[in-house]
Amino acid sequence: MHKASAALTSRGSGTGSGTGGEPAARLAVSAAATDGVAMSNAAFFEWFDERRREQPQQVRRIPFSELSGWGFDQATGNLQHRSGRFFTVHGLRVRSDFGPVPEWEQPIINQPEFGILGIAVREIDGVLHLLMQAKSEPGNINGVQLSPTIQATKSNYSRVHGGSAVKYLESFHRPAPGSVLADSLQSEQGTWFYRKRNRNMVVEVGPEVEAGEDFCWLTLGQVNALLGFDNLVNMDARTVLSCLPDWQPAVTGEVSDGAPATSLHSAMSLHSDTEVRSWLTQRRIEHEIITTALPLNDVTGWERWDDRIEHERGRYFSIIAVDVSSGRREVPAWSQPLLHPSGVGLAGLLVRHIDGVLHALMRARVEPGLLDIAELAPTVQGTPGNYAHLPAEDRPPFQEELLERSTEQALFDSVLSEEGGRFHHAECRYVITEVADDVLETEDGLRPGHEEFRWMSVTQLGELLKYSSQLNVQARTLVAALRSVR
Amino acid sequence: MHKASAALTSRGSGTGSGTGGEPAARLAVSAAATDGVAMSNAAFFEWFDERRREQPQQVRRIPFSELSGWGFDQATGNLQHRSGRFFTVHGLRVRSDFGPVPEWEQPIINQPEFGILGIAVREIDGVLHLLMQAKSEPGNINGVQLSPTIQATKSNYSRVHGGSAVKYLESFHRPAPGSVLADSLQSEQGTWFYRKRNRNMVVEVGPEVEAGEDFCWLTLGQVNALLGFDNLVNMDARTVLSCLPDWQPAVTGEVSDGAPATSLHSAMSLHSDTEVRSWLTQRRIEHEIITTALPLNDVTGWERWDDRIEHERGRYFSIIAVDVSSGRREVPAWSQPLLHPSGVGLAGLLVRHIDGVLHALMRARVEPGLLDIAELAPTVQGTPGNYAHLPAEDRPPFQEELLERSTEQALFDSVLSEEGGRFHHAECRYVITEVADDVLETEDGLRPGHEEFRWMSVTQLGELLKYSSQLNVQARTLVAALRSVR
Repeated sequence: MHKASAALTSRGSGTGSGTGGEPAARLAVSAAATDGVAMSNAAFFEWFDERRREQPQQVRRIPFSELSGWGFDQATGNLQHRSGRFFTVHGLRVRSDFGPVPEWEQPIINQPEFGILGIAVREIDGVLHLLMQAKSEPGNINGVQLSPTIQATKSNYSRVHGGSAVKYLESFHRPAPGSVLADSLQSEQGTWFYRKRNRNMVVEVGPEVEAGEDFCWLTLGQVNALLGFDNLVNMDARTVLSCLPDWQPAVTGEVSDGAPATSLHSAMSLHSDTEVRSWLTQRRIEHEIITTALPLNDVTGWERWDDRIEHERGRYFSIIAVDVSSGRREVPAWSQPLLHPSGVGLAGLLVRHIDGVLHALMRARVEPGLLDIAELAPTVQGTPGNYAHLPAEDRPPFQEELLERSTEQALFDSVLSEEGGRFHHAECRYVITEVADDVLETEDGLRPGHEEFRWMSVTQLGELLKYSSQLNVQARTLVAALRSVR
Repeated sequence: MHKASAALTSRGSGTGSGTGGEPAARLAVSAAATDGVAMSNAAFFEWFDERRREQPQQVRRIPFSELSGWGFDQATGNLQHRSGRFFTVHGLRVRSDFGPVPEWEQPIINQPEFGILGIAVREIDGVLHLLMQAKSEPGNINGVQLSPTIQATKSNYSRVHGGSAVKYLESFHRPAPGSVLADSLQSEQGTWFYRKRNRNMVVEVGPEVEAGEDFCWLTLGQVNALLGFDNLVNMDARTVLSCLPDWQPAVTGEVSDGAPATSLHSAMSLHSDTEVRSWLTQRRIEHEIITTALPLNDVTGWERWDDRIEHERGRYFSIIAVDVSSGRREVPAWSQPLLHPSGVGLAGLLVRHIDGVLHALMRARVEPGLLDIAELAPTVQGTPGNYAHLPAEDRPPFQEELLERSTEQALFDSVLSEEGGRFHHAECRYVITEVADDVLETEDGLRPGHEEFRWMSVTQLGELLKYSSQLNVQARTLVAALRSVR
């Protein structure tokens, strides 16, 4: 394995437009610059407040009948745009041979196009900076959040909406040779989206690229610190951040018994990469899950009112409609459907040092909208309110442990928003808590259901993030969050 | 990158049941043992001839009406088994925004279950041996071919067919900790199968596992040599072989100018791994391809006769029915549909040493049945007869170059069979030819369409083969073939 890995380091791995060196080393320098180079933290907050004032946005819930350009298809009842673009809300029947609810039907958002989520990075005074955007979205709880350089659906960038051109698109459409730091297709919420994936890119650009009106250059250290603020760094930015090359050493500082971890041997993972991949393969094939697209009219257990489609018991989420008017003259008003979750989500990661190497407890989670059946998810993921009616043994494992420990020992604990262009006030509490022991074992032996969980090193997660369909979107936020506090 | 890669080598990478050491090093020893340890080459051929005599099989084409257990659904016309298992032949409409034929309809085989293709390896006299099977399949041109240890659909191993238990299944269902050498989901023919993937596994077993009646232990060197014989090593064995950890040094012998390639720096690839992944991501998103399942009755351009469903111009393939009777008393006779291709396929790889490192010219190929749109395919792939009616500029690039050069310079040139359980007499000529120059460049600059092609090192291909949806099944055969002749 040593041999093969070494041979993969290529002459082409330097970036074309930078001053050279490994991307990871240059990112480490940027991560250490916590008060900025191009813009101080104080200046950032002043600028960001100003962006919020400059981008006032009125979002008003409306009945479906007042939507402009959107309507229910007469035959199917699917909610769709008259152009056939953007996205459609249709029904999905899910049948599986496992879990407390083996069969159900639900509405789901189908957006077959690939969008681009991209962050441009540029060296300023010898330090890599990320070009971040202050961008308002109708579903955001607070209007403007910190977003990637570019966040565009194909409908956006091919200008179906008739709006203005997407800024910085060219840097991502035709990146210079050697300038790409990350580029993969990554999934989004597999319970709300049907097989949606976006292209996640990080591209290094040259000094000719400057920050426009709603953009600023921040160091990685600054962005990492901002991740700790509630509802500030948006989901699109977080997923792209997680795809950055891992800039951190595999072994951090000291191990828990106080001895410094210096040996190369300890820079290892509990399970080999082959074992981890084999375990995930097993999870993907051992159960049957069959999803069938349905006309929205035929979905049972959900009710359509004049201003919402909701679950008969008020659980999970509803589909609503909003009218959006911007304070900016160049942006016309529009209306659109949004998915409104029924409660605040919880995504929690238990982490643990094993021989000085930080590991995270990942769960292989099947979601009906994922292209490849199951992806690595956080230890705990869900909306606690949706499980309240289930008996304790059917609630997500480790939820209680995570919440009990998190009050005192959380490494990370912030409420962050999911994508505000599709979801309305979709908040999720992201928690990372360190444990000392292997919680997969109890006094009576291995915990029931332990096969769905594996301790994986953060380095292994970084390697998997180079590929598609490995970590789900909640896990990716937690990888970005974990790196921000190490 | 060095750091991260080194950290991924794990304490768990040794195999549990062997004598230890890196799998790649132990495989290299096995590859060097070209005349066997447990069984000599002479003894193998004698044994294999005997297997052919012991497994006589009569395969007779029959009209669909004589199929037992299979029939056309009254409403859809789909050809299916009355149990609902095995596979179904339905229709597919394909619409894309590229290529000489942007829209067409065709029958396609849908087999949503995951099968297992697995090879058990075991150390005998200090050398790893592969447990290979002499197995007959109704579509095989010559009855028995050399197959993996286990080759089982879920219908097989859950015994839907009422037959006997699948041998060696337990070694793959519950492999010992640390015994897995490879385990991933790999695609099969994306023009004949709709999203079919099988689990490809290599598992090390202990001395308690012995070769049963139709099985033998061969070294990797022996299996590699057998790959060069026409129609001997079956498709299932070839794809599993391609998933073995790469046992070969990245730099082979001498570079073309006669200087030995010893520097670590030359053990590199023309394009970095990040660049290769980014290029494949771009290929996957840049075109639209929309596939829609159709009732077989509604497929245009195809005609159903009493004993075949064929294209109106006789191209591509036909669906036929066969009756199979075995000479063995314990195997009952059965009948089933098969797909019969209309001509011998061609899969060719141009390879080239770049600074002493062997590279292959891969094409990112969109196939309608692939789960993830496009995978890496050979330089040339297709059935030349299907393109004969197209103007020269619409025929596959490099086909002429490959065939011209191959007569004198082929590193590998064998006719091999595709899976005989689904395909009838499906032969494909696999050719590997080395070129001295970068054929992507012509006198006038870069060749048109060059963006679909990339030179990738064999080491990079081996790294990608650890993951799903990266190399298509024809490319995997050529990787196994290329390693067999290096």
